[in-house]
Amino acid sequence: MAAAYLENDFHATASFELFVRNLPRQRGYLLTAGLEQALDFLETARFSPEEIAFLRAQPVFTHVSDAFFDYLKAFHFSGEVWAVAEGTPVFADEPLLRVTGPIIEAQIVETFLLTTLTFQTMIATKAARVVQAAGGRGVVEFGSRRAHGPEAGVLAARAAYIGGCMGTSNVEAGFRFGIPTYGTVAHSFVMAYGDEEESFQRFERVFPDHAILLVDTYDTLAAIDKIIQLGMRPRGVRLDSGDLASLSREVRRRLDQGGLGETKIFASGDLNEHSIAAVLAEGAPIDFFGVGTELVTSKDAPSLGGVYKLVELRDDTAEHPRAKFSEDKVTYPGRKQVFRFRDPQGLYSHDIIARAEEKHADAEPLLTRVLDNGKRIQPSPPLQTVKEWTQESLAHLPEPYRRLREPAVYPVKISQSLAQLLEEVRQKTLVPRTSRGS
Amino acid sequence: MAAAYLENDFHATASFELFVRNLPRQRGYLLTAGLEQALDFLETARFSPEEIAFLRAQPVFTHVSDAFFDYLKAFHFSGEVWAVAEGTPVFADEPLLRVTGPIIEAQIVETFLLTTLTFQTMIATKAARVVQAAGGRGVVEFGSRRAHGPEAGVLAARAAYIGGCMGTSNVEAGFRFGIPTYGTVAHSFVMAYGDEEESFQRFERVFPDHAILLVDTYDTLAAIDKIIQLGMRPRGVRLDSGDLASLSREVRRRLDQGGLGETKIFASGDLNEHSIAAVLAEGAPIDFFGVGTELVTSKDAPSLGGVYKLVELRDDTAEHPRAKFSEDKVTYPGRKQVFRFRDPQGLYSHDIIARAEEKHADAEPLLTRVLDNGKRIQPSPPLQTVKEWTQESLAHLPEPYRRLREPAVYPVKISQSLAQLLEEVRQKTLVPRTSRGS
Repeated sequence: MAAAYLENDFHATASFELFVRNLPRQRGYLLTAGLEQALDFLETARFSPEEIAFLRAQPVFTHVSDAFFDYLKAFHFSGEVWAVAEGTPVFADEPLLRVTGPIIEAQIVETFLLTTLTFQTMIATKAARVVQAAGGRGVVEFGSRRAHGPEAGVLAARAAYIGGCMGTSNVEAGFRFGIPTYGTVAHSFVMAYGDEEESFQRFERVFPDHAILLVDTYDTLAAIDKIIQLGMRPRGVRLDSGDLASLSREVRRRLDQGGLGETKIFASGDLNEHSIAAVLAEGAPIDFFGVGTELVTSKDAPSLGGVYKLVELRDDTAEHPRAKFSEDKVTYPGRKQVFRFRDPQGLYSHDIIARAEEKHADAEPLLTRVLDNGKRIQPSPPLQTVKEWTQESLAHLPEPYRRLREPAVYPVKISQSLAQLLEEVRQKTLVPRTSRGS
Repeated sequence: MAAAYLENDFHATASFELFVRNLPRQRGYLLTAGLEQALDFLETARFSPEEIAFLRAQPVFTHVSDAFFDYLKAFHFSGEVWAVAEGTPVFADEPLLRVTGPIIEAQIVETFLLTTLTFQTMIATKAARVVQAAGGRGVVEFGSRRAHGPEAGVLAARAAYIGGCMGTSNVEAGFRFGIPTYGTVAHSFVMAYGDEEESFQRFERVFPDHAILLVDTYDTLAAIDKIIQLGMRPRGVRLDSGDLASLSREVRRRLDQGGLGETKIFASGDLNEHSIAAVLAEGAPIDFFGVGTELVTSKDAPSLGGVYKLVELRDDTAEHPRAKFSEDKVTYPGRKQVFRFRDPQGLYSHDIIARAEEKHADAEPLLTRVLDNGKRIQPSPPLQTVKEWTQESLAHLPEPYRRLREPAVYPVKISQSLAQLLEEVRQKTLVPRTSRGS
C-alpha cells in the first residue's frame, strides 16, 4: 500500500485511530498499556539497506520505481500522535491512539502499533482482574515459560506490572524496565539433591532473607514438618498443587505452631482471577500468589479486536473525514477526543466520544499529544508513576464495571457533533445496498 | 537456583527433558517447531557486563559471593542437546528436546527453551489444522496485528509456514526466514481514495500481476460489477465479511460471466479450521484463505502445558535417574528416546517411550543429537526442507489422529525397561503419604 500511494503520488495527511471494537467476554473495561514501546518504535523505525534490498527483490515490486526504495531509505515517522496515558481504563470504540502524518508513514507503522498496544493492554487488563481478586495480597507474574515467545514474556511482565502485579519472575524484564523480580525454587532443585531437607538447607544458606521453599515435590505437610524440625526460618513456602484452601490452612496452622508465624504462604499452579477469588472466599490464609499461564496469555480472552482505522484525510484545501459502513460495523469519522465525566463523588460516571476540537466543561480529555514531528514531547513517565496512575484511575471506576463476572456496561456516548458528522459522511459515501449478497 | 548450585559447589551433569503433559482439547497431535531458534539461543547466550552488574545489585544476591558473578561472566552453554526434528508430529509426554550439561547451564536456559519451543509448536499445530481444513487451497498467515507483540508475530509466521501455510503477510518474517510474503490491500486504501473504482485502478496500476482487491469496503457485489465494467483483470479479489459461502458463489458466477475466470477468490475475516471446513462443505468456490487472529494466538488453545523436567544426574561414579511423584503427575526418570513404529502400509502405528540406550528394531528414533559441546553438529535444515518433512510426516499419521474434532488418541507406550526404572526410582524416593492434606 505504501508503494501504491507513492507511485500514485498520493501524499495527503492522514489520521488513523486505534481502538478496540468490542470488549472480550467478562471484561467491563480495558486497561491501556504499551504506549512507551509504541513511541520508542515511532521515534526510531528505519529501513536498513539489507531490508530495502530484500524488498526490491520481491517479484511483487517488479513494476515499482526506484522512487519508492529511495523513499524507504529516508523513511522516518514525522507525524503527530495523541494517546491515552498508560494505565487508564478505556472502553469499546474509544481511541487509545491517534496517528496523524503523511499517509504512507501512518500506514507503515500500523501493524507494529496494533500488536504492541493491544497485547500489553490485554495483559494489563487481565493482571488488574487477577490483582483485584487477590484483594490486597501480592501477585507476582510468573508466566514467561508459557508466553508467546521470549519477547512476549518480557512485555507481558511489563504490562502485568502496570496492571498491579508486585513484580515478575522474568529477570530480563527487571533489567530492562526496573520491575521488581521474585524467584522461588523449582521442583528440579529439590530433585537434584534428592533429599528434600538438604535441598532446603542448601537454598536457604545462599538466600537467608529471601528463600521461598517449594514444599510439594513429594509431600507438602511432611515438608512443612521437616522445615520446622530443622529449625529453619524461610521467608516463605510455596504450594504448587493440591487443594490450596485446605492445604494452606493446615500449613498455616503447623507453621504458627512451629513458631514460624512470620513465614509467608505463597501459592501457584494454573491460577486465575476466578480460582484466586474462590480460595480466598474459602478463607485460605495465602499471602502471595504466583500467576503464570493464565495471566501472560490472557487465556480466557487471548486476543483483542484491535483495529487501526483511517478517520480523516487532509490536503491543502480541506479536511475530508472518512468512515466505513460495510456490514453492521460503523467507524466514526474524523479526529476524535474522549471526554471522561465524574459524578459528585468524583467517580467516573460516563464518557463522551467527541470530535477532537469540541470542548466539554467538567470533563477530562483522555487523549493528549505525546509525539510531534516524530519526537516525544516529553519523556514517557516512569513505570512506577504509570502503576500509581493505574491504581488511582481504577479506584475511580465504580465497582459494577470492575466485576469479574457479568460486569455492568460503562456508558459511552457519542457527541451530537460527531453523530452529525457521521450522517454527513454517510450521505456522501453510501452506495445502494440492494445488490448485496446473502 | 544457579547461584544456589554454584555456592553449594554442586556441579553434577544434569539431563532435563522438555515435553507437553497433555494435548489441548481437540488436538490429536502436536507439530514440533522452534528448534532452530532454541539452538541459536544455546549457541550464543551470554551475560553482558550490564546484566551482571544489574544482578549483583539485587538485594536477593546480598549473600552471594563474587564467584557466581565471575561464573556468569564466562557463561556459555557447553552441553549436548537431542531433539525431535521440526515438523514432526509428537504426543503427550514425548520429549521434544533433551538437554544434558552442567546443571547450572541446563537450568539457566530453561525458560527460553520452553517459551520458544512450546509457542512455535502450538502455532505450527494450529496451522496444520487450518491447512488441513482448507483441503489443498492455499492458506496465508495474516495475523501479525493480533499476535502477542511484534516478535510473536514474526515467530508465528515461521511456525505457521512450517505447519503448512503458503506464506505470511509479515514482511519481516519474509526478510528473516525467507518465507513467501503476500499482501492485499486494506479498507483504508479504498477509503483514502473515497472512490472505490479509482482505488482499484490505482492499486492495480502498481501491481499489475499481483493485485488482490478488497471488495467489501462498501458493497461486495457492486464492487465486483465495477471491476468487470472497468475491464480490470486483478489476480484476485478478497472477501472479508458477510456470508462467505453464498457471497463467494455469487462473486464466482459474476467473475466467470464477466470473463474473469482466472481471477481468484481470497477469503478472510476471523477464520479458523472449523469455519473454513464449514464454508467449503457448503461448496464455497474460495481459492485462498487469509487466517489471522485465530491462527497466531491459537485462540481455542492459547497455551501448551510444556514442562522441562530433571530426569537424570550424573557424577563421576554413576547415573542417578530422577523422577517426580507429587500429585497424580509422574515424570518418567532417565534419559529417554521415542521410537516410532509403522504399520505394513508405512503409516505410523504407535510410539514407545524408552530409555535412551534401548534398541527397537524396525522403529525410527525421533530424537537425534543436534548440539554437542554447545555447538550445532550440522546446520539447521532450510525451512523449505522442514516444511516438506511436515507434509511427509503428517501424511503418515493416520486420519483418525488428525481429525479436527474428537481425534483418536494415538497409542504411546512406555517400554518395559523404562517402567522398571520408574519403579526402582519410586522405591528410592517415595515418602509416606499419610500426612498429606485434604
